[in-house]
Amino acid sequence: METKYNFSAGPAMLPVEVMQKVQQSLLNYKNTGFSIIEISHRSSVFIDLLEETNHLFRTITNLPDNYSILYMPGGAQMQFSAIPLNLLPTQESIATYYETGYFAKVANQEASKYGTINVIGQANAKTKYKTMPSYNASDIENSEYVYITSNNTIFGTKWASFPATQTTPLVVDATSDILSQPLNMQSVGILFASMQKNLGPAGLTLVLCRKDLLQKTKRTIPKLLNYSIYDEQQSMPNTINTFAIYVFNLVLQWLQERGGLEEVAKYNTKKAQLLYQYIDQTNFYQNTIPSSNRSTMNVVFTTGDQEKDTLFIREAEQNGLYFLKGHRVVGGVRASIYNAMPLEACQKLLTFMEAFENKYTSIS
Amino acid sequence: METKYNFSAGPAMLPVEVMQKVQQSLLNYKNTGFSIIEISHRSSVFIDLLEETNHLFRTITNLPDNYSILYMPGGAQMQFSAIPLNLLPTQESIATYYETGYFAKVANQEASKYGTINVIGQANAKTKYKTMPSYNASDIENSEYVYITSNNTIFGTKWASFPATQTTPLVVDATSDILSQPLNMQSVGILFASMQKNLGPAGLTLVLCRKDLLQKTKRTIPKLLNYSIYDEQQSMPNTINTFAIYVFNLVLQWLQERGGLEEVAKYNTKKAQLLYQYIDQTNFYQNTIPSSNRSTMNVVFTTGDQEKDTLFIREAEQNGLYFLKGHRVVGGVRASIYNAMPLEACQKLLTFMEAFENKYTSIS
Repeated sequence: METKYNFSAGPAMLPVEVMQKVQQSLLNYKNTGFSIIEISHRSSVFIDLLEETNHLFRTITNLPDNYSILYMPGGAQMQFSAIPLNLLPTQESIATYYETGYFAKVANQEASKYGTINVIGQANAKTKYKTMPSYNASDIENSEYVYITSNNTIFGTKWASFPATQTTPLVVDATSDILSQPLNMQSVGILFASMQKNLGPAGLTLVLCRKDLLQKTKRTIPKLLNYSIYDEQQSMPNTINTFAIYVFNLVLQWLQERGGLEEVAKYNTKKAQLLYQYIDQTNFYQNTIPSSNRSTMNVVFTTGDQEKDTLFIREAEQNGLYFLKGHRVVGGVRASIYNAMPLEACQKLLTFMEAFENKYTSIS
Repeated sequence: METKYNFSAGPAMLPVEVMQKVQQSLLNYKNTGFSIIEISHRSSVFIDLLEETNHLFRTITNLPDNYSILYMPGGAQMQFSAIPLNLLPTQESIATYYETGYFAKVANQEASKYGTINVIGQANAKTKYKTMPSYNASDIENSEYVYITSNNTIFGTKWASFPATQTTPLVVDATSDILSQPLNMQSVGILFASMQKNLGPAGLTLVLCRKDLLQKTKRTIPKLLNYSIYDEQQSMPNTINTFAIYVFNLVLQWLQERGGLEEVAKYNTKKAQLLYQYIDQTNFYQNTIPSSNRSTMNVVFTTGDQEKDTLFIREAEQNGLYFLKGHRVVGGVRASIYNAMPLEACQKLLTFMEAFENKYTSIS
């Protein structure tokens, strides 16, 4: 069977080598005779796995010691509630949210239940968030924290660099680009990412929390949204998603085998540039995002013609290139090319883009 | 290799046939060429799976139409917060909690953040919850709901029958005995169970919610703890744990192939009775729980001697019988024999119990 490439925005493809290992060991983890999903999260076998995973994560990312690694359920959106509940001391406390896309909007709407939210960038919704807001220190005055989405999956944009908020902690939703490059914790108070793009299967969220922020409020917080409880109990106030931890561990091993995050970043840039360069050199495909804000993970483009875009997506499938349909609010084409996506897939997509262009230029 | 039996209290063993299917199809779900964990939760392939799962669940359980099936993250403990937030209109509202074990206690402690909680059975903590409280209608007056744990995993007890609360909705934590017998929704407002014992892998919780309870409060509720949002959005306000749904679907198919819940209940009773009958006929092992309250899922017993119990657990492992150690607050031995546990394993355990008794009776 011809290789099928999976450009899904998430849950997304995982490294083939990782998936093969999961399959091989599914009924017998490390010769225990048991599956990793059928043993207690309190067993020494699982606790060893969890500790090894944290150690591996710190090694690969150089995460500073003053950050705790927490695993929390509910996907990134559970953090949209947890963040204000843990970081805003009162209903009158202020936080600044940069609205750079759909998820940033959902995040600020949720936060406004628990504090006074200063939203910047809302006006960009009209132009489908193609422009990223610029950062001004005066905008964040009196804010307990500043919230950003590092990469916007739907709109194909990213922050060229994080706002230099100095002592005001940055809170970063890094769901769609975590570990795609070296981890930058400058000014970061909390960085979180749900697993299902670069880290593992859906159902768990990684939260890196600066320790001084763990006990910031005395608000009534639902137990499983309270950062200190996860910190005190090694992320296991109750049963953790053991399967997700297992796959995450294998993904980290895979990243290490790839030479670490510097190498991974180079490879990711190469993949994305291959596509952006071609888009820029032809008039057939368009992407109007300023180059410094173009996402390395989600490459969006359009032929400018809805019918032709639909045809593109359909014919791409016939060529083994799947799930290229853009999100319904922007339409067009979206190639999600997370860490696990091989360069060959981008080359194959490029070849198809050329062929499609030739076919439909000549007959139009 | 000799068969190893896994008596873990949870995450627990799943049916062997289910695990084999998961392994076989892990890299290629239904000939799509993709893994079920690598495709979008919004794809038609996954939505079909989710709908089929709900249909199968309703067929197997005869769940009345006025209950919604919700899937929520965070394990049963996330429900400990969600329940009072969704069901108690104000901080002054009252709920009655029957404290029959550790998890019931954690549940009432969490609920007391959000309302006035009337706790019954607390005194039983002293005798390690061996006695179940009796139900009196006068105890639940003015309660918005009555909370029970149907089966107590740690202490090996169960409600012989649910309290007849009439029009006051029962809220049931059925984590450790759901689908071990036909589903009884009499007086039940909400019944919930995290997956990792009878349903699938850890990381997702099934919540059956009577529709009239969906909009009971106007409190500020974190978005992902709000039952109405899950109901309105088919449990996908954000990315769902797709792997857990997949395994749950296979478990439901397996239950159907076993002849349904009546048959499963008979089989479970047979397994548990095999052990209880032997415990009762010898003086070597003890279980002092009244027979009508003995759990069918978690059979606890002791030799009455801590050292001998430790020896029992160690020698059992040498005989292929694993994870029999009782929870640290009660000690002794615990055999968790959920749906997936075959009768042969209980027979093997029984044979070992006899041999162990003979060995240590003769030399004591």
